[in-house]
Amino acid sequence: MIPRVTTRWHIRKFDGNIAIEKDDEIATEFALTFRLDGEEFATIVCSPSDLHEMAIGFLASEGVIRTIDDIKSIDMNEDRGFVYVELHYKQSTSKEYYSKRFIGSCCGKSRQFYFQNDVRTARTSTTRTRVSVEQCLKLMRLLQQSSADFRSTGGVHNAAICTTSELLAVRSDIGRHNALDKVFGYCLQNRIHTGDKMIAFSGRMSSEVVLKASKIGVGILLSKSAPTDLALQLAQDLGITCVGFIRGNELNAYTHMDRIIWDSIDD
Amino acid sequence: MIPRVTTRWHIRKFDGNIAIEKDDEIATEFALTFRLDGEEFATIVCSPSDLHEMAIGFLASEGVIRTIDDIKSIDMNEDRGFVYVELHYKQSTSKEYYSKRFIGSCCGKSRQFYFQNDVRTARTSTTRTRVSVEQCLKLMRLLQQSSADFRSTGGVHNAAICTTSELLAVRSDIGRHNALDKVFGYCLQNRIHTGDKMIAFSGRMSSEVVLKASKIGVGILLSKSAPTDLALQLAQDLGITCVGFIRGNELNAYTHMDRIIWDSIDD
Repeated sequence: MIPRVTTRWHIRKFDGNIAIEKDDEIATEFALTFRLDGEEFATIVCSPSDLHEMAIGFLASEGVIRTIDDIKSIDMNEDRGFVYVELHYKQSTSKEYYSKRFIGSCCGKSRQFYFQNDVRTARTSTTRTRVSVEQCLKLMRLLQQSSADFRSTGGVHNAAICTTSELLAVRSDIGRHNALDKVFGYCLQNRIHTGDKMIAFSGRMSSEVVLKASKIGVGILLSKSAPTDLALQLAQDLGITCVGFIRGNELNAYTHMDRIIWDSIDD
Repeated sequence: MIPRVTTRWHIRKFDGNIAIEKDDEIATEFALTFRLDGEEFATIVCSPSDLHEMAIGFLASEGVIRTIDDIKSIDMNEDRGFVYVELHYKQSTSKEYYSKRFIGSCCGKSRQFYFQNDVRTARTSTTRTRVSVEQCLKLMRLLQQSSADFRSTGGVHNAAICTTSELLAVRSDIGRHNALDKVFGYCLQNRIHTGDKMIAFSGRMSSEVVLKASKIGVGILLSKSAPTDLALQLAQDLGITCVGFIRGNELNAYTHMDRIIWDSIDD
């Protein structure tokens, strides 16, 4: 039986005047261990929703699979917190390889940073999709409205795959990366063509988030939050348009701004 | 030369009415690779401040060292983003061990979750330190006031080691765990007795955060944000008092509440 995404907990609350005892909704944190072709591969902690999609997205993010067809079988045991994955081919690279740092030949001042598996799986976007300022603002509003289940518990991240006009699928998780992996898994499972789509995300745009957007295959990344400089350097390199601090009627564009339509607001 | 914690980036900003071009301060994200006794151990991305403390704290969090005396030498090469660590003893356990899931013998419904290294290094607190509601509110106010450097860039986490009346050291990072590791490193380097101290933290109380507080050795964890249910189960188990959602004049107490002094507000 899959656990609920929130749990009740008895708390003592001070509201500024008095202390009261009450039950409160707390976000569930679920530990899921991947066994890949019979060997322990990784353990992640996540919100227990859309676990099948998350498993697929995680394997793709880690560079273990490229498409859904690489997976022979995937069996989820929610009670034990294990997922058993078999691939159609034997993994040729060791597990260590995935987290090894990639040292490029040009190590100048503005050197980028990748793990070795990122070098193989990150894709440079050349999409011609363009998005208007109004569409960015609207999509972020829709994203914030969509996660009612989690809102009461605080601090959950949302990610969505979207067209320029609507959210196609929204996924939530206590972990930033898991929310994106769930979206990635959704795209792979439903064979979504991602090249003309965008990612809308509640969390910060770190290097890992930009790399994940690149692996998913989108060219535009919208975020409610701040970017880091390394994320922006990678986005420049990988052809990703980064739009951040999308809050109310404001936003900041950081990279590949030619994909943003400013016309309507300039008039 | 160590990079600055913020970087300037040329952005295009829409402020609700017009689009303007301007330079903006962006949080720097720095990749640091650990080489431990000559072998690549891990790569983390972090804010480039207090790197020496972070390296020590990270090694302690991972269970590689117990005290500062376990380290023979630690050399930081900021230009290349590498830190070279030598220990006084040869590591007896393989790197894989650290991230292996620990399966306890009692796997009931409320089973806890630990990685194998956590089982060895997490300590149960039996501290008699108590803290009043007013002190909790005050310490969180001090924490929020303390990170002026980072405030402009958005989304940086702060952690502090504190007594019941003051912050002893505040550390900031783009990564939640790094901020805590910097504090951990500070405590080890300065041989702070942590048993009667507390951690104040801006980020969410996930299982990993509670485990880190336990490894640091404190009995009380204060946070501006929400907990997860697994964090609270572990806190129960490890004797950690969790206080969350400390905002303005409000707070929620979740575990081991006998360490919180409610008297003054009950009067």
